[in-house]
Amino acid sequence: MNTYTPRLARLIEALRKLPGVGPKSAQRMAFHLLDRDRQGARNLATALGEALDAIGRCPGCRMFCEDQACRYCTPARGASGLLCVVESPADLMAIEAASAYRGRYFVLMGRLSPLDGVGPEELGLSVLQEVLDGGQIQEMIVATNPTVEGEATAYYLAEIGKAAGVRVSRIAHGIPMGGELEYVDGGTLAHALSGRTPV
Amino acid sequence: MNTYTPRLARLIEALRKLPGVGPKSAQRMAFHLLDRDRQGARNLATALGEALDAIGRCPGCRMFCEDQACRYCTPARGASGLLCVVESPADLMAIEAASAYRGRYFVLMGRLSPLDGVGPEELGLSVLQEVLDGGQIQEMIVATNPTVEGEATAYYLAEIGKAAGVRVSRIAHGIPMGGELEYVDGGTLAHALSGRTPV
Repeated sequence: MNTYTPRLARLIEALRKLPGVGPKSAQRMAFHLLDRDRQGARNLATALGEALDAIGRCPGCRMFCEDQACRYCTPARGASGLLCVVESPADLMAIEAASAYRGRYFVLMGRLSPLDGVGPEELGLSVLQEVLDGGQIQEMIVATNPTVEGEATAYYLAEIGKAAGVRVSRIAHGIPMGGELEYVDGGTLAHALSGRTPV
Repeated sequence: MNTYTPRLARLIEALRKLPGVGPKSAQRMAFHLLDRDRQGARNLATALGEALDAIGRCPGCRMFCEDQACRYCTPARGASGLLCVVESPADLMAIEAASAYRGRYFVLMGRLSPLDGVGPEELGLSVLQEVLDGGQIQEMIVATNPTVEGEATAYYLAEIGKAAGVRVSRIAHGIPMGGELEYVDGGTLAHALSGRTPV
């Protein structure tokens, strides 16, 4: 379809770059913004510009950070002696929102995936090495996802942690709360059985 | 959750204003843009700004229009003597893409809905009246959606058209192409039967 006017076409093309947005959704978004929410569109443009200018990466934990002092690398969190390694900023947010964990974090921004060209350098493991060598961390909690690549990454991280003389733990995998054994997939059930804990 | 940094929170809030985007999707979009597609984010901000500045409404057909001359109000289209009335810009695009119709359009930007405070003024029916009184239009094709409100709008439009001495037609409703009678809903089937055409 080349029936869009040039600027409308550019707007729809730019909206399609958002994750999960196809041509139909992009058209709907563009028409909605132009027809009913011009102020919202203006706010979005401003918010995008400000976020791009201000938000960078914390050099210590690789989380998004817009101030001089990263809110996840405070001395209080460091004093806990805990470091939680996650794959993405969304994982960090989920842990922060759901649990009472208030230690430090390290965000890999991905997982080991040689086929996609993601190796230890892309995940910033040299930065992680420095953090571990700093001597403040006593326990590293590996909270990568229980996928094939996530497990491989966890294994690799465990080796690094052990080499640095740090206790390494993995978050528990098993039946989700409220789940029913009857409907849980076989892999999870097998994992839950082999990973049983004494009561 | 007030764990977002201020600019990140503003960006996620602005993304939530897009249709069909909830808090989780907005967070995912924000993280994707900041982490992997900063150029895309920059383009989106620019495209939004340019579109807002340049795109207005055509005074003749109420479609989005960014040039002096609306591409749907050309003399060639006017010469066809046809006017197609649709509810939204997306409907216009769909007709333009799927059919050989090359007459004029009129975009209501909504439908009659007294409960929502949408009356004839909000739909720009005085502009439509002027177009019909212009004398160039011989047939008005009412292509509102076959919903309760769309049908009420169609009835109202038909009255206006007849009063202006213009032939009024309604797009056909019935079994969709490739649809099977067995699986079509009762309302559509009844409509298709009562609206049968001689062969």
